[in-house]
Amino acid sequence: MLPSLPILQWGRAYNRETLLGDGVAAVIVTIMLIPQSLAYAMLAGLPPEVGLYASVAPLLLYAGFGTSRVLAVGPVAVVSLMTAAAIGEHAVPGSPEYWAAAITLAFLSGVLLLAMGLLRLGFLANFLSHPVISGFISASGILIAASQFKTLLGVEADGHNFLNLGLSLLSQLGEAHGLTLTIGVLTVAFLFWVRSGLKPLLQRLGMSTRAADIVAKTGPVAAIALTTLLTWALGWQAQGVKIVGAVPQGLPPFTLPLWDPGLWQPLLVPALLISVVGFVESVSVGQTLAAKRRQRIEPDQELVALGASNLGAAFTGGFPVTGGFARSVVNFDAGAQTPAAGVFTAVGILLASLFLTPALFYLPQATLAATIVVAVLSLVDFSILRKTWQYGRADFIAVVATLFATLGIGVETGLVVGVAVSLALYLFRTSRPHMAEVGLVAGTEHFRNVQRHTVLTSPSVFSLRVDESLYFANSRALEERINDVVARRPALEHVVLQCSAINDIDASALESLEAIDQRLSGAGLRLHLSEVKGPVMDRLKQTDFLQHLSGRVFLTHFQAIHALSPEVA
Amino acid sequence: MLPSLPILQWGRAYNRETLLGDGVAAVIVTIMLIPQSLAYAMLAGLPPEVGLYASVAPLLLYAGFGTSRVLAVGPVAVVSLMTAAAIGEHAVPGSPEYWAAAITLAFLSGVLLLAMGLLRLGFLANFLSHPVISGFISASGILIAASQFKTLLGVEADGHNFLNLGLSLLSQLGEAHGLTLTIGVLTVAFLFWVRSGLKPLLQRLGMSTRAADIVAKTGPVAAIALTTLLTWALGWQAQGVKIVGAVPQGLPPFTLPLWDPGLWQPLLVPALLISVVGFVESVSVGQTLAAKRRQRIEPDQELVALGASNLGAAFTGGFPVTGGFARSVVNFDAGAQTPAAGVFTAVGILLASLFLTPALFYLPQATLAATIVVAVLSLVDFSILRKTWQYGRADFIAVVATLFATLGIGVETGLVVGVAVSLALYLFRTSRPHMAEVGLVAGTEHFRNVQRHTVLTSPSVFSLRVDESLYFANSRALEERINDVVARRPALEHVVLQCSAINDIDASALESLEAIDQRLSGAGLRLHLSEVKGPVMDRLKQTDFLQHLSGRVFLTHFQAIHALSPEVA
Repeated sequence: MLPSLPILQWGRAYNRETLLGDGVAAVIVTIMLIPQSLAYAMLAGLPPEVGLYASVAPLLLYAGFGTSRVLAVGPVAVVSLMTAAAIGEHAVPGSPEYWAAAITLAFLSGVLLLAMGLLRLGFLANFLSHPVISGFISASGILIAASQFKTLLGVEADGHNFLNLGLSLLSQLGEAHGLTLTIGVLTVAFLFWVRSGLKPLLQRLGMSTRAADIVAKTGPVAAIALTTLLTWALGWQAQGVKIVGAVPQGLPPFTLPLWDPGLWQPLLVPALLISVVGFVESVSVGQTLAAKRRQRIEPDQELVALGASNLGAAFTGGFPVTGGFARSVVNFDAGAQTPAAGVFTAVGILLASLFLTPALFYLPQATLAATIVVAVLSLVDFSILRKTWQYGRADFIAVVATLFATLGIGVETGLVVGVAVSLALYLFRTSRPHMAEVGLVAGTEHFRNVQRHTVLTSPSVFSLRVDESLYFANSRALEERINDVVARRPALEHVVLQCSAINDIDASALESLEAIDQRLSGAGLRLHLSEVKGPVMDRLKQTDFLQHLSGRVFLTHFQAIHALSPEVA
Repeated sequence: MLPSLPILQWGRAYNRETLLGDGVAAVIVTIMLIPQSLAYAMLAGLPPEVGLYASVAPLLLYAGFGTSRVLAVGPVAVVSLMTAAAIGEHAVPGSPEYWAAAITLAFLSGVLLLAMGLLRLGFLANFLSHPVISGFISASGILIAASQFKTLLGVEADGHNFLNLGLSLLSQLGEAHGLTLTIGVLTVAFLFWVRSGLKPLLQRLGMSTRAADIVAKTGPVAAIALTTLLTWALGWQAQGVKIVGAVPQGLPPFTLPLWDPGLWQPLLVPALLISVVGFVESVSVGQTLAAKRRQRIEPDQELVALGASNLGAAFTGGFPVTGGFARSVVNFDAGAQTPAAGVFTAVGILLASLFLTPALFYLPQATLAATIVVAVLSLVDFSILRKTWQYGRADFIAVVATLFATLGIGVETGLVVGVAVSLALYLFRTSRPHMAEVGLVAGTEHFRNVQRHTVLTSPSVFSLRVDESLYFANSRALEERINDVVARRPALEHVVLQCSAINDIDASALESLEAIDQRLSGAGLRLHLSEVKGPVMDRLKQTDFLQHLSGRVFLTHFQAIHALSPEVA
């Protein structure tokens, strides 16, 4: 498959109306993205300008290749945390080697995404279940917030899981810097108030809901402006408050990934996990927003677009990026019509990196940490625990395993454990299918579970319904169930399998059916089938199973019972 | 669970008739087992007497704990090959360390089997599919036969996969020992003739089928007796024919496994694979034979019995054992009624190891190799390739992967690759469920695939039947299918999911259904369900999904279409 260029479609229909919508949305998203890009770069252990670099080329490339009209690509919290975890083992945060490793990670991630897109492997992301994603995102949110506490407290701390991070923080608690902590706590409080208190206040003052919403989104920018001004005016830097300092002014640089297989090898699995997580987050929000306007996105093409975006990040001094949830929703709500909104946002960030960076000199690091804490705490949502506990224990176990492994060991292990546990539980469940002995509901042609209903049965006929497709992991369970019944009921002459819920029979299950049939006929009994689905019947007809079958195949189960035990039906 | 003692049941009912059946069967099985136990010990790289030791205590313990009345436990070909592969890396074949490692492997295997039995983990064996087992057994048969060619040729060769074994043999071809090769080839020819030519001959001479069958089973013993006599009489040893030599006379020794974690660690995975393969082989034959007499076996109790047998082997100088296919069938056919036949067989082997071993001094090793080659070639059966090619490509791929990995890399890798490939293919298949748009068959209440039948549909209603339970790996496929249709059909007002083939909906799929419903209602459409199964409905009712659902839940799909597009129904 050649990657398509969706820009050729929406570009031709571009007009003044779409320009207006895209322009307004771009201004708002740019205002949101400036503090976020600085903060997420810091979260990833990178200099703040790297966040700005990662918010230019990726946006332009996504606009060219992406199928979502409104997805806002750029640095996001969870991927930044995963970046820090992946490269923290290979270089010291803040060093040039660390930045080079981040660039290399973006490159590998881009190559993997592109390859997955061209090979149409987007379905692989489906193996990340909702509970695993929820558990992972919540745990990541907690880890991110915890990692920012060192900046809020003004201390040094280190660690990639909750335990060693927590211990490191506790041991430093005595060293906390009072003024830094005050700035951090007040900023957190201000940002929470902007979220929950400002919007209703503005509405009461007569502002429209949408305008109030947009003003509330400027909270982080206001916090940055205010604390930067105060730090400059009151000389807080001299009192020990850590500031962002000199941020280079200029265009994103041209960079190359490190050509070092010794580094590629350990980064490959993290790059794959970052790609999959980024893709899943991106596609979820993209699909939801597209559906609202009866549009659709093409997941395999999205892989290509995200791959191009990450390659773009790698060659312009950035780090791994993906489509962010919050910014995309704002982009949509603010009226973005086409990916041109992303192009305009990129221009906005470009202007910021050309002219705004000197103004960031006195920005306290604690302010950025506060914006991260407030942003990620909205990711933490434990309602999935209650929901899955009520709905299905297997899903609950998968959430808990993901949560504990992510918090206790780290993001990469957490994700792998989550996928492995959810797959194992699925296989376990399908390997023990629900099987019900059924009997005839008197006066009807319907059959129901003998344990749940009063039904008619015959001692010479055993009617079994299997509520699962038959495959290697569950076919022996069927053999055992039938062996058991045959051994217990001496009067038995016929076994009838009601196949209405069997969507497929694999080669192992076919062998099991043959074995069951041979054992039954060896003991003087017969095996019959009823209600076999069309596609299953087509496959059975390709074999000699039906020719050797000791019994018959009935169209309906009622016909089977009518023929085999007329005293019942 | 406490292990039960099936011996208490059949022991009480023991009488003269069962004694006679068991006695006759035991004599025949003993005659078969003597050459097999020597040969399989040699295959495992162990001294021949170890084969006899492994055929006493394990049989007694299985008789006490096993639930099969006729299973003949002892050394078997595939497990012997796996033993050689597992311990060949840690010690030199023939050395005391090698024997000690084999004893330790039997111990670990026994502990694992016992633990799996007590924890009721017998279902784990179900993840070995029939195609994987078939491919594995066939490849093992080829590897075993290839490994015996060095003994038939009278040369030294080494290797645990087909490639390095074959290269090693080819490089030694010039060194082949003529007389050894003659003995080997003639023995192979004789054994094949006994199998295929002798039985019909005896029947033509008026012998009953059963008696002819039993005489044919004594072929290997006759070959051993004849070649041993000839070697002794003609002094072949002096001409370079390798003989078995001095075999210690006496009771099986009391031995202890090595208490060495450094050895346990690498042996643990091989021990697990040996346990699972042995268990699967044992349970398959046990179930088939039990069913013929309307008896049944208890898989978890079988694990306990096989665990006890392997522990017995470990403490009496043996190596890993399991229930063998060929000997169990002979035991059954010869009239064994209870596990006492196994006790009598153990007594027979005990007498052989006390008194017969001096007679084995002049037995040519090539004769034993010939009996192995003939025995294992019956394991090689490539019909599974044709069968799975016709029936299902996924199964075919699993067979081929297992075959190539086993032959090309080795037994352990082959088995692991087979299981991984078959699980991956199953997950892949269920992640892309069959979905059919259905329409009404005119004049009926039945719905069929619109692509395969002429049916009635409405532009405002999309009826979709999903032929698979919904879970995390396939729920997004449903989302995409519906998004796609909604984007293509502007007249659409209703989406109806016919749920007759959906046996389960997990938490991820429920989230997907909620997302689908929200997107549809956001775009002014409605989502309806029809023919939801009882258990699925019970689970949905535990959530608020049905309260928020934009559409309705219909008992039958016909009712849904009747209500939503009366012009059709």
